[in-house]
Amino acid sequence: MTSMSPNLALNEQVARLRADGRAIVHLGFGESRLPAFGPLVEQLCAGAGRNAYGPVAGSPDALASTAGWFARRGLPTDPDQVMLGPGSKPLLMALNLVLPGDVLLPRPCWNSYAPQARLAGKRVWGVPIPVSCGGIPDPAALRTTIGRARREGGDPRIVVLTLPDNPTGTLAGADLVREVCAVAEAEDLTIVSDEIYRDVMHVPDAPFLSPAEVVPHRTVVTTGLSKSLAVGGWRVGALRVPPGDDAGRRLREGLIGVASDMWSTLSGPLQQVAAYAFADPPEIRARLAASARLHGAVARAVHAAVVAAGAHCRPPTGAFYVYPDFEPVRAALRLRGVNDSASLARHLLDELGLAVLAGHLLGDDPQALRFKAATSMLYGETAEEQEAALGAEDPLALPHVADTLIRVEEGFAKLTA
Amino acid sequence: MTSMSPNLALNEQVARLRADGRAIVHLGFGESRLPAFGPLVEQLCAGAGRNAYGPVAGSPDALASTAGWFARRGLPTDPDQVMLGPGSKPLLMALNLVLPGDVLLPRPCWNSYAPQARLAGKRVWGVPIPVSCGGIPDPAALRTTIGRARREGGDPRIVVLTLPDNPTGTLAGADLVREVCAVAEAEDLTIVSDEIYRDVMHVPDAPFLSPAEVVPHRTVVTTGLSKSLAVGGWRVGALRVPPGDDAGRRLREGLIGVASDMWSTLSGPLQQVAAYAFADPPEIRARLAASARLHGAVARAVHAAVVAAGAHCRPPTGAFYVYPDFEPVRAALRLRGVNDSASLARHLLDELGLAVLAGHLLGDDPQALRFKAATSMLYGETAEEQEAALGAEDPLALPHVADTLIRVEEGFAKLTA
Repeated sequence: MTSMSPNLALNEQVARLRADGRAIVHLGFGESRLPAFGPLVEQLCAGAGRNAYGPVAGSPDALASTAGWFARRGLPTDPDQVMLGPGSKPLLMALNLVLPGDVLLPRPCWNSYAPQARLAGKRVWGVPIPVSCGGIPDPAALRTTIGRARREGGDPRIVVLTLPDNPTGTLAGADLVREVCAVAEAEDLTIVSDEIYRDVMHVPDAPFLSPAEVVPHRTVVTTGLSKSLAVGGWRVGALRVPPGDDAGRRLREGLIGVASDMWSTLSGPLQQVAAYAFADPPEIRARLAASARLHGAVARAVHAAVVAAGAHCRPPTGAFYVYPDFEPVRAALRLRGVNDSASLARHLLDELGLAVLAGHLLGDDPQALRFKAATSMLYGETAEEQEAALGAEDPLALPHVADTLIRVEEGFAKLTA
Repeated sequence: MTSMSPNLALNEQVARLRADGRAIVHLGFGESRLPAFGPLVEQLCAGAGRNAYGPVAGSPDALASTAGWFARRGLPTDPDQVMLGPGSKPLLMALNLVLPGDVLLPRPCWNSYAPQARLAGKRVWGVPIPVSCGGIPDPAALRTTIGRARREGGDPRIVVLTLPDNPTGTLAGADLVREVCAVAEAEDLTIVSDEIYRDVMHVPDAPFLSPAEVVPHRTVVTTGLSKSLAVGGWRVGALRVPPGDDAGRRLREGLIGVASDMWSTLSGPLQQVAAYAFADPPEIRARLAASARLHGAVARAVHAAVVAAGAHCRPPTGAFYVYPDFEPVRAALRLRGVNDSASLARHLLDELGLAVLAGHLLGDDPQALRFKAATSMLYGETAEEQEAALGAEDPLALPHVADTLIRVEEGFAKLTA
């Protein structure tokens, strides 16, 4: 029987530990812990009258806004290429139910890709990520894995990319994206490009190449408001099928068919939120920029902490994660009974009060000393603290942020001291 | 490839026809077309701060309320037996993914049960409904069908009941429920009891026996706010697993596992709505009662119209549907080129401006002259008209309701005149 996805399970475990009085620094859950932005709340309320079932794919205003969102990010899009859903998660699940063939995933990757594929009756192969970044299979390893999968009786037809990446907090550069697109072209793979962190690049106007720009007719893009605008609990996702061809149109019809039997439509008030937010009005652009800057500052501080403790770690440039590898200090960790991914995460939680998500739960090698640390819940416990962090020139100088980061630094330092 | 569920497809078709200037009476969609109740809107807005990911099953306040909702309806329930979702539809889909075995459905039944089962890789067998009511397989036919399914290599393990029923607008009485429960017990079937119309019985305090009262350890109940409180577009559903045993607990864990990978959690603001509405405060009870009374009055009027036109039709007592059978006037219909379910629905839409859902789209015999007429969108076009209908002692006497009903009566009369 399917068990709860490990990130959500850890989140609930941390809530219980805190309720029992344990002081836990929560690095184990990919949530942007910031208040809902006022104008979004206004739209939610203003949309309350949308209590009738609307079109399955989304209401015309929300589809038009979302098409514009993609267009302003380098992907000219017709509203008929877009659909909305209660989060990008069900949209990704619908893709698994509609697209034929088995699935290739970067290793490590977000923890719901593989269970979704298996729920849809698919087989899954993990492909190691490059040294420079995650979210993308190493192109040579991708070719090798496709060959192996076929020898094992599989039919790999889908590859999932995450740009920028959860769990590594990095973005695959243009050259790597092109290389993977070339493999997809040669091997006739559909690319599912999960771009939910698209608006969480730490540096404004950072270069970004979507596979949908390179191989438009074989790329489906998903995104949502959860991460960039800190409304994960509201559940708003969007999807874009390939442009202007019958295959894209048929794919969307298939997805709408599945959606109509799985969830009917995105909640009406949230469609009004989507219509507003995906239109990128100036105050939303400013909120996105402030949020991304904060995510970057804190992610870099946590990166510095794990590196100071002896880990290798790719420097984060997007999203709000770091993915350290403590292999360089394996000997020191062995003295503490830590010798794999599970014992490392357990030791961090039980002994040092740091909740992290063990790498093997993301498909990584269970023997490796790796984990995901989400850095987006360190901005304060109250809405006031969080807003102060968002507005600060130097958020790391705020006492409540600095105090938490000191606990993080001290915790990781103790790990190998 | 899966096509859009036929009720949602028809709803979108009607919207297009109306946009083109066609005057259509929309009897083809099971939506309670009433304004969102003010206190629900207040709760939605008050819940906007729930923008963090909450527990997958639902927040404690919402689970406690929902448990109380079941308890007040004859099913003592612990909050740990409950989970919420974005509509009962995804909860039913999750059941299909978690419960083993193939599926037995009443024939006709709601149009998403069969596609959901097939998406989950299950086989489906339809079982004729009794003469007296729908939403339940005829017990003798159920036994016969189970035998046939097994001979055909199937493994029937699940039977779905709808109490009260969509599409027939009737409620299976206690004796029939007990008979089907006895078959379930003898044949080791899990009962999925879809009670989303539980609060839409036309007569207050009408007798209602849930299979969860008869065979509690093999019955899962689903419900939601969409139908009773006219917020289908908001998407709030709930589910109750069997009480107090390991099997129920394991089932819920499996469902939470699937939910965690399919949709994460019900939108936070809607959890606040659920926490409020499922607590049955007095103003909600009054709204439920007024809504059910209106649904009953209009359903009975449409029933009278189809009977006057020569159809057989079970008198509606719950939900907001009638399901006429025009077999008695087959000869007259043949003169109009109508000789099956599809041509009957097409003729009603194209020639008479009445949108109905053809019976074969609900699993019924394509040769039969049957369809579902939803009667819940005849209360007016504006919120003011709809509220007036809700508040009226005799809604049928309101000009805007009476005018629409005259069009319905005339349309059906012309069918066989």
